[in-house]
Amino acid sequence: MGIKQVKKGNTVFFNNTPRITSYAAICGSKEKTGVIGAFADVALDDDMYGESTYEKAECKMLSDAISLVIEKGGLKQQDIDVMLSGDLLNQIISASFAARDYLFPFLGVYSACSTMSESIMLAAMMVNAGYVKRAVAATGSHFASAERQYRYPLELGCTRPPQAQWTVTGAGGCLITDAKEGIRITSATMGRVCDYGVTDVNNMGAAMAPAAADTIMQHFIDTGTSPTDYDMILTGDLGALGSRIVKDLSWEKGYDISKNHVDCGEIIYKVIENEFQGGSGAGCSAVVLNSYVLSKMQSGLYKRILFAATGALLSTVSSGQGESIPAISHAVELEY
Amino acid sequence: MGIKQVKKGNTVFFNNTPRITSYAAICGSKEKTGVIGAFADVALDDDMYGESTYEKAECKMLSDAISLVIEKGGLKQQDIDVMLSGDLLNQIISASFAARDYLFPFLGVYSACSTMSESIMLAAMMVNAGYVKRAVAATGSHFASAERQYRYPLELGCTRPPQAQWTVTGAGGCLITDAKEGIRITSATMGRVCDYGVTDVNNMGAAMAPAAADTIMQHFIDTGTSPTDYDMILTGDLGALGSRIVKDLSWEKGYDISKNHVDCGEIIYKVIENEFQGGSGAGCSAVVLNSYVLSKMQSGLYKRILFAATGALLSTVSSGQGESIPAISHAVELEY
Repeated sequence: MGIKQVKKGNTVFFNNTPRITSYAAICGSKEKTGVIGAFADVALDDDMYGESTYEKAECKMLSDAISLVIEKGGLKQQDIDVMLSGDLLNQIISASFAARDYLFPFLGVYSACSTMSESIMLAAMMVNAGYVKRAVAATGSHFASAERQYRYPLELGCTRPPQAQWTVTGAGGCLITDAKEGIRITSATMGRVCDYGVTDVNNMGAAMAPAAADTIMQHFIDTGTSPTDYDMILTGDLGALGSRIVKDLSWEKGYDISKNHVDCGEIIYKVIENEFQGGSGAGCSAVVLNSYVLSKMQSGLYKRILFAATGALLSTVSSGQGESIPAISHAVELEY
Repeated sequence: MGIKQVKKGNTVFFNNTPRITSYAAICGSKEKTGVIGAFADVALDDDMYGESTYEKAECKMLSDAISLVIEKGGLKQQDIDVMLSGDLLNQIISASFAARDYLFPFLGVYSACSTMSESIMLAAMMVNAGYVKRAVAATGSHFASAERQYRYPLELGCTRPPQAQWTVTGAGGCLITDAKEGIRITSATMGRVCDYGVTDVNNMGAAMAPAAADTIMQHFIDTGTSPTDYDMILTGDLGALGSRIVKDLSWEKGYDISKNHVDCGEIIYKVIENEFQGGSGAGCSAVVLNSYVLSKMQSGLYKRILFAATGALLSTVSSGQGESIPAISHAVELEY
């Protein structure tokens, strides 16, 4: 296949142009009322999705999103070489149990809410090198399972602080292949762990913004590009506050991303009155990317996007033991 | 670099021969008394490792193992392109917080106790394709943090059932590079999720054995090899019972692995009287591989090994909701 080259800084270049050839998203009832409601393949009326627990509903959404991705790609599961997935639940049970529904190999990844970009990046690496022809990258989250695992049981009816975000109920994924048509994945920038000492577990945006800024700046440096080269610089779930911070941090480093920065968490809900800073969770960027964003790329509205999802690498145990919240962001460059 | 080939079935072939050029392991006080005690780089007398919590001790072991790997490779952290790691704690906090100690990019993976082989496989894929030159793959576990997360607080003094295993306190890792010398990684077989319906959370060996058998058989088929082609077929932490099962399952499929099958969990402790079925945990295969096994390869005792670590993909929530225990095994072929 003739790999030309390859890597500069923390960025890997894909000379054999792996492509996103299909994508799908399932969203919850609250998400249905927002901008992406009309773009999701399935928008639930009942967030239990016919299951007996929130966790099983989350897993079913993810599994069904994977099925839709394969189906929309005109393929059957026998045609898929590998699936890369992870999620927010302890031991990534949504992804593992979703993978149980399929015959193809499964590589579990964990990068909190940046799982979508990490899994696309790894899938693109595998397709670009010719290891596999067709890989599925997918993730998801569920408001209710996240609340009870990370915060409080919903039944307690706790008041949410103003800096809080709302975990998205939804799942999304895409098919990365060696086809000649489709959205090109041209490069990927691997993220480093950044920790600015934020300890407020309700303020994920502030914890993750430095990681987003670090990866986005690194991408510009490695690729020799600037913000205006992209139609959109898409972060995952920084929310309204985190989005302000990432713009400020970038500005301080000499990059003005204010004109084309969009955050999936900021746009997923119609009004962010009840959700305060907007959406969050692995499903947030998974749903927004794999519905609205990729369809608008295909229709020609966006030609070049830098997708940098962000993840907060905490657990209830780490925070309980007084640790701050490290964060990470992996970025992939998409062109059409 | 000229990628020749590539893939058959679920196995990826590494024609540019990525190599393991250094490795290191840290083990706990109990593990110190076993066979690998003399081979580990550091054997602790105090499993708290000077930290205030079990989780912090686990994280410190992993971070220190990574440092040792880099140091033994004659390198500094600036020379490392990426680190792939994961662990058993919720949201892989040991790996994430260990990654915070370093400047290089971090890719979080989760495959329960098969994290060691998944991370070596992905690192080898990245090095083989030329994306990176030097990647660290590492994982670990801690008996006390695993007990309180997955089972009961140690203070309760619960009786262990005879099918139980003992989570290894230890961490290990290796450096995968494009060097011309070192242990060759010649192929990797990606595992599928297997679920035979085992629901006993104390019987990990039985849950994981089918996944090990599936991947090992798939490897033989894809590579056209048979058990006798390998000096050792090394599973991760099936324990005594699981090892018997994997041999039986393989026998049923026409492959006799009984002569050269070794399980890290079965050999890590001197006597398995108090540990019943032997060792388990992500640290089990990480420590055994990255101390005893790789050093014996380098000394010429073993020329070709198939390393197939296994992971049980459960959580306390999935088991609490009545789910069975899916499992997975990823395999890498090592030659020297």
